[in-house]
Amino acid sequence: MGAMTGEAFINRLNQRKTEIWFNGNKVEGKISEHPAFKGLIHTKESLYDLQHDPTFNEDMTFSLPGKKERIGLSYLQPKTKDDLKRRRKMMEHWARHTHGMMGRSPDYMNSALMSFASSAAILKDRENCFPEHIQALYERAMNEDLSFAHSFITPQVNRSQINMGFSEEPISAKVVEKNEKGLVIKGARLLATQGGITDEILVFSAPRLFFDPDQAFAFSIPSDTEGLKFICRESFVGSESLFNHPLSARYEEMDSIVVFDNVLVPWERVFYYDNVDAAIDFLNKSSFYSFAYHQVIIRQVVKTEFILGVAELLVATINVSEYQHIQEKLSEIIIGLETMKALLDKSEADAEIDEWGYMRPSIIPLQVAGTIFPKMYPRFCEIIQLIGASGMVSLPTEKDFESPIRQDLEKYLQATNKTAEDRVKLFRLAWDLTMSPFGTRQIQYERYFFGDPIRLSSNLYKAYPKQLSVDRVSQFLHLKND
Amino acid sequence: MGAMTGEAFINRLNQRKTEIWFNGNKVEGKISEHPAFKGLIHTKESLYDLQHDPTFNEDMTFSLPGKKERIGLSYLQPKTKDDLKRRRKMMEHWARHTHGMMGRSPDYMNSALMSFASSAAILKDRENCFPEHIQALYERAMNEDLSFAHSFITPQVNRSQINMGFSEEPISAKVVEKNEKGLVIKGARLLATQGGITDEILVFSAPRLFFDPDQAFAFSIPSDTEGLKFICRESFVGSESLFNHPLSARYEEMDSIVVFDNVLVPWERVFYYDNVDAAIDFLNKSSFYSFAYHQVIIRQVVKTEFILGVAELLVATINVSEYQHIQEKLSEIIIGLETMKALLDKSEADAEIDEWGYMRPSIIPLQVAGTIFPKMYPRFCEIIQLIGASGMVSLPTEKDFESPIRQDLEKYLQATNKTAEDRVKLFRLAWDLTMSPFGTRQIQYERYFFGDPIRLSSNLYKAYPKQLSVDRVSQFLHLKND
Amino acid sequence: MGAMTGEAFINRLNQRKTEIWFNGNKVEGKISEHPAFKGLIHTKESLYDLQHDPTFNEDMTFSLPGKKERIGLSYLQPKTKDDLKRRRKMMEHWARHTHGMMGRSPDYMNSALMSFASSAAILKDRENCFPEHIQALYERAMNEDLSFAHSFITPQVNRSQINMGFSEEPISAKVVEKNEKGLVIKGARLLATQGGITDEILVFSAPRLFFDPDQAFAFSIPSDTEGLKFICRESFVGSESLFNHPLSARYEEMDSIVVFDNVLVPWERVFYYDNVDAAIDFLNKSSFYSFAYHQVIIRQVVKTEFILGVAELLVATINVSEYQHIQEKLSEIIIGLETMKALLDKSEADAEIDEWGYMRPSIIPLQVAGTIFPKMYPRFCEIIQLIGASGMVSLPTEKDFESPIRQDLEKYLQATNKTAEDRVKLFRLAWDLTMSPFGTRQIQYERYFFGDPIRLSSNLYKAYPKQLSVDRVSQFLHLKND
Amino acid sequence: MGAMTGEAFINRLNQRKTEIWFNGNKVEGKISEHPAFKGLIHTKESLYDLQHDPTFNEDMTFSLPGKKERIGLSYLQPKTKDDLKRRRKMMEHWARHTHGMMGRSPDYMNSALMSFASSAAILKDRENCFPEHIQALYERAMNEDLSFAHSFITPQVNRSQINMGFSEEPISAKVVEKNEKGLVIKGARLLATQGGITDEILVFSAPRLFFDPDQAFAFSIPSDTEGLKFICRESFVGSESLFNHPLSARYEEMDSIVVFDNVLVPWERVFYYDNVDAAIDFLNKSSFYSFAYHQVIIRQVVKTEFILGVAELLVATINVSEYQHIQEKLSEIIIGLETMKALLDKSEADAEIDEWGYMRPSIIPLQVAGTIFPKMYPRFCEIIQLIGASGMVSLPTEKDFESPIRQDLEKYLQATNKTAEDRVKLFRLAWDLTMSPFGTRQIQYERYFFGDPIRLSSNLYKAYPKQLSVDRVSQFLHLKND
Repeated sequence: MGAMTGEAFINRLNQRKTEIWFNGNKVEGKISEHPAFKGLIHTKESLYDLQHDPTFNEDMTFSLPGKKERIGLSYLQPKTKDDLKRRRKMMEHWARHTHGMMGRSPDYMNSALMSFASSAAILKDRENCFPEHIQALYERAMNEDLSFAHSFITPQVNRSQINMGFSEEPISAKVVEKNEKGLVIKGARLLATQGGITDEILVFSAPRLFFDPDQAFAFSIPSDTEGLKFICRESFVGSESLFNHPLSARYEEMDSIVVFDNVLVPWERVFYYDNVDAAIDFLNKSSFYSFAYHQVIIRQVVKTEFILGVAELLVATINVSEYQHIQEKLSEIIIGLETMKALLDKSEADAEIDEWGYMRPSIIPLQVAGTIFPKMYPRFCEIIQLIGASGMVSLPTEKDFESPIRQDLEKYLQATNKTAEDRVKLFRLAWDLTMSPFGTRQIQYERYFFGDPIRLSSNLYKAYPKQLSVDRVSQFLHLKND
Repeated sequence: MGAMTGEAFINRLNQRKTEIWFNGNKVEGKISEHPAFKGLIHTKESLYDLQHDPTFNEDMTFSLPGKKERIGLSYLQPKTKDDLKRRRKMMEHWARHTHGMMGRSPDYMNSALMSFASSAAILKDRENCFPEHIQALYERAMNEDLSFAHSFITPQVNRSQINMGFSEEPISAKVVEKNEKGLVIKGARLLATQGGITDEILVFSAPRLFFDPDQAFAFSIPSDTEGLKFICRESFVGSESLFNHPLSARYEEMDSIVVFDNVLVPWERVFYYDNVDAAIDFLNKSSFYSFAYHQVIIRQVVKTEFILGVAELLVATINVSEYQHIQEKLSEIIIGLETMKALLDKSEADAEIDEWGYMRPSIIPLQVAGTIFPKMYPRFCEIIQLIGASGMVSLPTEKDFESPIRQDLEKYLQATNKTAEDRVKLFRLAWDLTMSPFGTRQIQYERYFFGDPIRLSSNLYKAYPKQLSVDRVSQFLHLKND
Repeated sequence: MGAMTGEAFINRLNQRKTEIWFNGNKVEGKISEHPAFKGLIHTKESLYDLQHDPTFNEDMTFSLPGKKERIGLSYLQPKTKDDLKRRRKMMEHWARHTHGMMGRSPDYMNSALMSFASSAAILKDRENCFPEHIQALYERAMNEDLSFAHSFITPQVNRSQINMGFSEEPISAKVVEKNEKGLVIKGARLLATQGGITDEILVFSAPRLFFDPDQAFAFSIPSDTEGLKFICRESFVGSESLFNHPLSARYEEMDSIVVFDNVLVPWERVFYYDNVDAAIDFLNKSSFYSFAYHQVIIRQVVKTEFILGVAELLVATINVSEYQHIQEKLSEIIIGLETMKALLDKSEADAEIDEWGYMRPSIIPLQVAGTIFPKMYPRFCEIIQLIGASGMVSLPTEKDFESPIRQDLEKYLQATNKTAEDRVKLFRLAWDLTMSPFGTRQIQYERYFFGDPIRLSSNLYKAYPKQLSVDRVSQFLHLKND
Repeated sequence: MGAMTGEAFINRLNQRKTEIWFNGNKVEGKISEHPAFKGLIHTKESLYDLQHDPTFNEDMTFSLPGKKERIGLSYLQPKTKDDLKRRRKMMEHWARHTHGMMGRSPDYMNSALMSFASSAAILKDRENCFPEHIQALYERAMNEDLSFAHSFITPQVNRSQINMGFSEEPISAKVVEKNEKGLVIKGARLLATQGGITDEILVFSAPRLFFDPDQAFAFSIPSDTEGLKFICRESFVGSESLFNHPLSARYEEMDSIVVFDNVLVPWERVFYYDNVDAAIDFLNKSSFYSFAYHQVIIRQVVKTEFILGVAELLVATINVSEYQHIQEKLSEIIIGLETMKALLDKSEADAEIDEWGYMRPSIIPLQVAGTIFPKMYPRFCEIIQLIGASGMVSLPTEKDFESPIRQDLEKYLQATNKTAEDRVKLFRLAWDLTMSPFGTRQIQYERYFFGDPIRLSSNLYKAYPKQLSVDRVSQFLHLKND
């Protein structure tokens, strides 16, 4: 089939019998019509349709020798810097279409899968490892344009350092049985964005201190596998009104807790299990981080452009561009944007061919970008609030504008060169972006995208090549013992 | 009557025919039963009842010579430092009852009114000034325990400095006619917290550059005066579930735009009009700022204590107290709390009798507190988010706990020494405090309580006595020209 | 003798045969005439003279029953809040005389000694403890108005947490022998401010992890005790010109490394030794921290007043008070100053009688002040630099003004309402305060006055009473397990 | 002659009869032997020698058609991106040789001159403009490898915005007469780094509000022109000991006030005069900013590498790399370094041919780098101080290590894997870098390199292309009036 249409995406999703719990009830009926999911699903529909839009088709897809159908370009295994640029262009199109507000647009997981396939050789001939299952999934995903969710946070009864995390009753999802059909998994994962509303769920663990062998696995299974449950949080869709909630009505992605109730993972779906070394190697030596970061930073650049647009439009609407502190705040956003773009460019310019022949973006600039954005994004949202000031607080709704008080609103809320309606639309956008449950969840999401910020700093410090600088200082001082 | 009961408060409110617009509809029926207002109104009910609670009655009320009924203590005109302490104790009770989350508990406006009455003599014998109307209102308010709203932000088509704000059609509320009955007001005010759900609305303007004489007025009128309209924003009540939305279900106060559609303000309700000098003098020389700041800082101290409790309970629940960065964040809250308390104490210790014989808290320490809290409060909320981390994102609801998946939740969300239910309750509180529409509105509200933070800094700089320090340096250097 | 004169102070100091090393040479001749020390010693002379100045005598000294001579008031053991206020006034006089720039004015160590004597009972009847020696020293110090230095930092070959600090050869000063005459000490202490230029040196250790019993001692010995060596750092006196270096010419205090080369400490000088518990108890339960913090915060308040004076005088001189960012920076200093003052007031207002009958300032507000000043002071210095801007860089000297180019300077460096000479004097002060070796050492000194800032935050968090706040939140949520 | 040797540079400098005032005296004798200048001059000698060093000769020089001698590469007018890379490599060599500590290495002014020559066509056929004089100077500079100083700050009696800066007696240097020989200049410039110790001084003004036509000039004249005086500040050379003052002994550049006492500037030296429009155009449209920024950012990157080396060596020496807050501080330096490098790379990657055929680095990324470094550099210095902590305060000197107390120092100051001497060397470097007069002047210098930081932010905001982002938001909201 190759690159899917939006319609095909929705139809396939509606046919799955995934067990999803929402506010105490099991979700029944077409998932694409459920108020908590419909906005997102229709936005994803439009993303898939972009692949077939004549304007974008060339940029969004590629041909594979011997295949008739064009394939979604997020599956492309890059071999040249030009391939990297093509990947970037494709991701920019999707990110622009959603203004960077969809954290898990399909290219994220597709890129992850592509990187897995491109590095599967790491697992070759190692115990309990099945690199061929990765390749098989990659091909199936490409052909069927499958959508994936991923879960990465394990429940923690106790976050103390000295707690080992072992307990008798499995709380974190772990292997409780192996039989001829496959692995049996019991336990939970805490946070899967779009969990339940994709075709499959890909499960693997970030290595950590006291890494339990029973948790050192990776696999992908259909969302409607028996025993698999997705427990949703409350919905952050403000309403279906695009006037009132321009972002949450379209981009609220839902997060869920994933419960494995003795779920059977067939052998052909297992990538590896019970091999701590392989699990660590696979994450650290594969191109996963390079390509995941590459996708994320591209999206964050687009999001920052959007933030800049909102900020500047607010400034123009209430006519405050002459104020020095406003200029300073806007220049802070500009600095953030240019910095992210420069780091992204550098990761591509310094890209190198890895040992399996794929062109891997340089990781250090991406890691730097991934370390600073979690601090920049909340600050950008604060800047939006500081520009909007008390104007963010009492905003009328779409219905107010359709009621007899419309004329009062038109008069009292007009701006220098904007109607009251346009002004309110803009402020509602600013509110949805920074002060609604959708907006604050986005802040928390960007803050923790790559995990604990303190650990990110620490990793960067450890990974960074510092010796040359140290040597130069030692030589300058003629130190003896270095 | 004197200090009112909660029941009396509700009955009187329900009898008013105030014109309130909510989401395009005129509010009909008992206001105390409307979903957008009932939580707040019932919380206020419990505040008024506290005045009659045997435990608090002594602290919350006082006797006036020749009066049988006890009066609400927020009306007490303090003449000694002990009176100030009594006022503080009373305000702490009300603030504790609402954890500092109700910005406009009755003591705020009552204190304002008390300060107006205590300084009314400023207006004596000045053109278009009626100090006796202030005294009359003060007495009536005391006797009937009236509730008030206040509006302080004027619509601004244009916030540029060089814009004079004059326009033909009145946009900001202004006097459009004077006749034998009183003043006629037309135009709007942008933000009245609890506007429409109090007995009266007190209207006056903070002096500013290019202060239009037509806007230099002050008066108080019943909320259901003809031609007066309150246009509400959307409601930030998350739901009526105290489990799901422990704060917004109780404390969401609503903000509204106030429209004056040729409203007649009878002469006996007018404090002053068309006298820019008197308006400026009245605000700057009366004890208004001293007592308003005093009430606000007391509330903010209580709120900070609450924040500290939430933060520490989160730390204990997920067992992270050993982490240095967590200790540093908590100590930041502690420093903020102790600083606010020390400044409040100092304002009372340095209080002085003013020219009309009332004990006025020292303004400088209060001004400092009022300048730093707008920066501290958003940071405290950020700290709560940083402690809660990814745990803030996918929280189940009350109904989830009442459904078949309860056992999953109990198992996978348990904490070190807390049940899953208690853990979720706590995290939902943290979410409602910092990430819900209610929580983010609170952040914006505290940030702008006393107006533009940049102007606050500037005012503090200008008002602060610096000369002695300058002289000491000049003498140290033996400078010639000072 | 009681309160000493400046002359007596200098004479006694010059008679000591203290072994001081400076830039590779043993210091010979009168210490009060050595270029590295004379400025400081003459400033201290003027401090002692203040005790006899008719204007200050009453404030600076007190009478003891049965004593003719008045005693320096820093030795007063306070029993009432009024006593605390007297102590504060006395310390303010001394601090004002030196603009808070002398970190170790005599009242610091005098207060420490007073607190030791007031809490000596803690050591009663404990092994290897001699509270009577503390009392004896206190009385001798009072009668002779002795001056003291103190050393508090131990050498550390290795600051890693897992390093235990034990080594065969004593590096940190420790007891290497006990004999009938006393203890023999060998090893070093890293930093004694004014080390060698006081009558005595008081030695004790702040308890810490892995506290070696051999280091759990406290004693005081004359600076010229045999085997005691003081190794000075380079001098930060810029020159003797008060025009060029108004601060360092007067207040540079010198720091030294203290080497104990088998120094015999006679038994009557020992307070305690080889008793880890007693050492810990003595520091934590005595009033030492309360009174040490009290003195320090008083000095820091005076220093902040000086900073404010310098900042405002710069602003006036270059006429930039209209700039919003300048107003904001000045208000930052004002906020810091008022906060420190409020915390200081609160520590006195909340003072309580301790178990031995002395009025002890409340420690929490002082601890808060001591935690924030290390961050505020460097920022204040940065603000001075930001106001001075490029004007801080090319400043002429006193000799330039005495040379033929004086007229060029007078013309080209004049300010709005200041002569060039006054302008240069002021900028040189700002430079000496923030950019000279003296100024940057002051920054580092204030930053680390009470030790590692991260540990200070951590201590504050641990010491602070948080339970009441936690309980209120628990009750609000009706949590089960608290 | 082409690229000069160090010896030739010194000889030529010593032959000039420049009028330099230092601490009230006119400097006599060989300038290269004066204690205030010798360190710098010998460092510059070594920079010029690098041009002839076989290892660097190829990188540091280039050939011009028809010229035998190779020319210093900073004079190369780049026509391709490869030329830009060559320029960068050359500048990196010089910057590395001085660890980025010499703000005015010869490439800075050479690049400025090259950019002037490359854009001189802007001045063609304009009144009072002489582009041919620029070209002539450029050629002479290239052939003789001349060294230049520049002055850019005008004296300001009054920095208030509303002060026009006009006065009768010229204070800022201005044209007071025109005659057949040239312009006569009277007045002063406030800050010329290396003023008096270069061959020539290039004078031009940054356009500003109320730009006086009498100040709208540009020219270059020999430093020893009659009537020209350089008044130095005090010297920041700590001593000649490289052990004690490893940086200031080598890199202290000296700043001076430049006085024009009716200085005749011959016509053939004048670039333009009395033409405000041409002066503004020339600075804003020429490639001056692009090439000046390019040189500066290259140097700052090298300096940041040096900072990183110092920081990491300190961390290793006192063995604190395990601490999370240390890792975070180091990662802050790493982030700064990588960001600066990425922006520099981007400016080269996005370079474009200008209208006169020269390859101009993209200005936006350079402007961003130039806006953030003034904030990063002081923070890096603070980080160095925070790592060094109390260890920065009492450091022995070279002479201490040559004296009898050497053995004490060796024992008590040893580090984990460093001798005491090496440890002290390193800490003295850290002190000279961040706490000496040299170090603090560097902080102020980097902070104000491109002028007032607030204006830099404002310029960036104004120059940045924001419209596309605004349009996307407008379209997203279907706003009517954009």
